[in-house]
Amino acid sequence: MTSNWLLEPCRTPDASIEAGARARQASLTKPPGSLGALEVAAVRLAALQRSSRPAVDPAWISIFAGDHGVAEEGVSAFPQAVTGEMLRNFANGGAAISVLAHELGATLEVVNLGTVNDPGEITGVRRAIIAASTANFCLQPAMTTAQLQAALDAGAHSVAAAQAGGARIFIGGEMGIANTTAASALGCALLGLPPGVLSGAGTGLDAGGVAHKARVIAQALATHAGATTVLEQLRCLGGFEIAALTGVYVAAAQGGLPVLVDGFIATVAALAAVRINPGCRDWLLFSHCSHEHGHARVLAALDAEPLLDLGLRLGEGSGAAIAFPLLRLACALHNGMATFEQAGVSEA
Amino acid sequence: MTSNWLLEPCRTPDASIEAGARARQASLTKPPGSLGALEVAAVRLAALQRSSRPAVDPAWISIFAGDHGVAEEGVSAFPQAVTGEMLRNFANGGAAISVLAHELGATLEVVNLGTVNDPGEITGVRRAIIAASTANFCLQPAMTTAQLQAALDAGAHSVAAAQAGGARIFIGGEMGIANTTAASALGCALLGLPPGVLSGAGTGLDAGGVAHKARVIAQALATHAGATTVLEQLRCLGGFEIAALTGVYVAAAQGGLPVLVDGFIATVAALAAVRINPGCRDWLLFSHCSHEHGHARVLAALDAEPLLDLGLRLGEGSGAAIAFPLLRLACALHNGMATFEQAGVSEA
Repeated sequence: MTSNWLLEPCRTPDASIEAGARARQASLTKPPGSLGALEVAAVRLAALQRSSRPAVDPAWISIFAGDHGVAEEGVSAFPQAVTGEMLRNFANGGAAISVLAHELGATLEVVNLGTVNDPGEITGVRRAIIAASTANFCLQPAMTTAQLQAALDAGAHSVAAAQAGGARIFIGGEMGIANTTAASALGCALLGLPPGVLSGAGTGLDAGGVAHKARVIAQALATHAGATTVLEQLRCLGGFEIAALTGVYVAAAQGGLPVLVDGFIATVAALAAVRINPGCRDWLLFSHCSHEHGHARVLAALDAEPLLDLGLRLGEGSGAAIAFPLLRLACALHNGMATFEQAGVSEA
Repeated sequence: MTSNWLLEPCRTPDASIEAGARARQASLTKPPGSLGALEVAAVRLAALQRSSRPAVDPAWISIFAGDHGVAEEGVSAFPQAVTGEMLRNFANGGAAISVLAHELGATLEVVNLGTVNDPGEITGVRRAIIAASTANFCLQPAMTTAQLQAALDAGAHSVAAAQAGGARIFIGGEMGIANTTAASALGCALLGLPPGVLSGAGTGLDAGGVAHKARVIAQALATHAGATTVLEQLRCLGGFEIAALTGVYVAAAQGGLPVLVDGFIATVAALAAVRINPGCRDWLLFSHCSHEHGHARVLAALDAEPLLDLGLRLGEGSGAAIAFPLLRLACALHNGMATFEQAGVSEA
């Protein structure tokens, strides 16, 4: 079981432009290296975009929503109806990511991959229904092969739309009650970790809830111990929106579009993408380390150095959107500052 | 020796508006607390601004530049001429803070408090010359009483200008070759620490340079061991721009204007301000923990939780400007998100 396109080669950063960008940073009127992570980001974006003037505007944000069969195990603080309810909130401008996208001038695409409480047609929501929800992965694989393929393809579809729209960076977000459980299970399978290491409070479980969630994940891992390829682990333990994000990360790298990865769930999807097609790692910038237990562990597995650590734990792409202005400023500084020579300022 | 106005009372946050803002955060369509530090910032700004709709636009940035007599001890990687040269770069739009102010739509005020390499009249630079530089504080007090007063007043003057201009937040920055040495010396005096704890690489010293700098600071601390009040320590070991920032932090709190504190030097100035007039602490938001050795120690002394940790070490208010969009987004989320009730979304 593989998708035709998933193993196609990713584009590569341009080493020559990267060297030029690094030289430019050293020539700007500041102590060398004094803009820290912003210098690193600007140089990276230049190399990825093959441009001496990196830019992240316009930005494209896609939110993928999908429900999870494992929700019936009582692993979330919120009822499952919220997934569908939030689709309307995204479209109506009331959700965090809606406010952020508006503030940032970013395009916001909302994709309904399948919700139990289906809100039907909503202006501003793309229907790409795979099923009302995944199956309960304690008992059976979360997805069929065809469902997994549809979810991966949905991610690639959004990347293509973003590129057609001229986007310079892609932010992927997710919404799905119980999806930290799916992400934790998938992360444990990918990293060979016991459930406790990646089981967290999600939207607000207490200690007893977290312990129960870890037991549910342990059961799922036992059920699917035979899933040894990344795609099989993703199929058995993932979710529609998680697989869509995995598709995003691979497709964006193949298309030459940098992505800004959001929180725990997005990072697990990114880990799956890198395990499927390692060339996509270059294209992943990491926005933040969230409050969700286990995120730091998954980031470490990706050798990721996220920009922010603000105790965020909302999902929806919100952490990436909050970090986005840092990239915008990094580009503005890289492109707009004067050199020592231009400004007539003495060097060290 | 005291300034007439420094001990006047600061304004206080409004507890009732703070409670209302906290309740609003809990009503918005997200898991409670899931926006982490951005929720804290929005609630804090609401309480400080006594408004249920906190805002940080328009922002005001003042950069205070001044030279340091201690530069003659060879404590900086850059020549002293750079302070004056950078004034022109600030005004011409080529410096980091110039680019940032432009990107953020913030007003940028540049104040020349005295530079050895005086660029003279420059459009966009306010001349408030105190002297060509402070005295070498290894040998004598950095400032006279009148000079200290002039520097403190210069800060208050900028706060008044910002308020007259309708600013909702104030960012203070500094420029002055050798001013990490002055800030380290002042910080050591204020906190009773040995020089090694707060001596760092500044704009780019090597290990030998840092060790030399620590010896210079030790000499300064010995010379001024008799300076036991905060104002005397500021006078003997500070600098024009450091004292101006201290004046900013006190005057802003008295005037009811929140400030976003920049890096190591600004944080030492903030520590002095809090020691002079503790009521100003409420008005200080901290933007980042810099790469400069010792900054984390001074932040801890202020019980500060900065927003960013990006390895920045530029000064000029740049770190605060880089963090500013986070406050802007925090306000937008607080003001613009829908409540569970408004959106028809089920609660936990």
